[in-house]
Amino acid sequence: MPTIVVPVATGFEEIEAISIIDVVRRSGIEVIVAHVDAEATVTGANGIRIVCDRPLEGIGSDDIDMIVLPGGWGGTNILATNETVQKLLKAMDSQKKYISAICAAPYALYVAGVLRKEFTCYPSVEEQIEGKHYLGDAHQVVYDANIMTSRGPGTAICFGLHIVKRLLTEAHYLELKAGLLADYCE
Amino acid sequence: MPTIVVPVATGFEEIEAISIIDVVRRSGIEVIVAHVDAEATVTGANGIRIVCDRPLEGIGSDDIDMIVLPGGWGGTNILATNETVQKLLKAMDSQKKYISAICAAPYALYVAGVLRKEFTCYPSVEEQIEGKHYLGDAHQVVYDANIMTSRGPGTAICFGLHIVKRLLTEAHYLELKAGLLADYCE
Repeated sequence: MPTIVVPVATGFEEIEAISIIDVVRRSGIEVIVAHVDAEATVTGANGIRIVCDRPLEGIGSDDIDMIVLPGGWGGTNILATNETVQKLLKAMDSQKKYISAICAAPYALYVAGVLRKEFTCYPSVEEQIEGKHYLGDAHQVVYDANIMTSRGPGTAICFGLHIVKRLLTEAHYLELKAGLLADYCE
Repeated sequence: MPTIVVPVATGFEEIEAISIIDVVRRSGIEVIVAHVDAEATVTGANGIRIVCDRPLEGIGSDDIDMIVLPGGWGGTNILATNETVQKLLKAMDSQKKYISAICAAPYALYVAGVLRKEFTCYPSVEEQIEGKHYLGDAHQVVYDANIMTSRGPGTAICFGLHIVKRLLTEAHYLELKAGLLADYCE
């Protein structure tokens, strides 16, 4: 089974992080919930505290098949400036491994220089991103080469489902989508 | 501002609990995340650990405007048998205060004797519930007097939005729905 890492930093958007972890774990894919700051317990944008599995420090691009960044501006600002996160994003990209981000977090990909031409994000975040092609709400999830981006809390379950489709099969995607009662996911 | 309590027990469904807490907190309503078991850190159905605000024990029906039960079978079995939860549900109902449940958790309302005639839940859970009228997927959220029920992870954001509409106004509902990019919520 593939392995993904979800780096979690103070101010992360809780629906996004938890929807990704929950949906992807339901598929059998291994999900490492990794704390970026020193503490294993991390507080989200809406005051929800989660306990992470291990620190991000020490996880290399050879250990994982995809890195997935949840949004929230507070968390994104850390992901965009933290050296461990930025180094891992660049290492993943140089190996052409999958990188995914939702909501504000595509900005952290832009800072790392790994965002490709076409992307989506939470509306207005695209104002911080120059020289790319923002697709708005044309798709819940945008694919461009090894990069996958999505929009916000309302598309987080769909984003999790697309991660499963990319790493496993369309059949896994459809089965999980039915079980989640997420018929609105494209 | 109103106050709600979300009792969290081992095996709770993470997308459901976190979507409710996140969406409702965005409105300014106070949300108490309360642990039913002794430990403040509670592990969900997909292994996600959250740290609760305080124990449910000690919270009375006079302290809150609504109790909201997240689903997941493991968590629901505890909510359906735990004396503190069951007593609080009965006390809320006898004061005609709001009670809400999603996914498997309407079963815990049924056990407490507070479920009204019309309800919805996660498909197949209705087989455990006799003498009521299961509405299936006719609505994302079903209202019957002071009881509100919903279906599963895919309807959890919409359920959170309906809690806000019920305790605040339609305008709060519409503004939050737009901000969450949850245009599929009815």
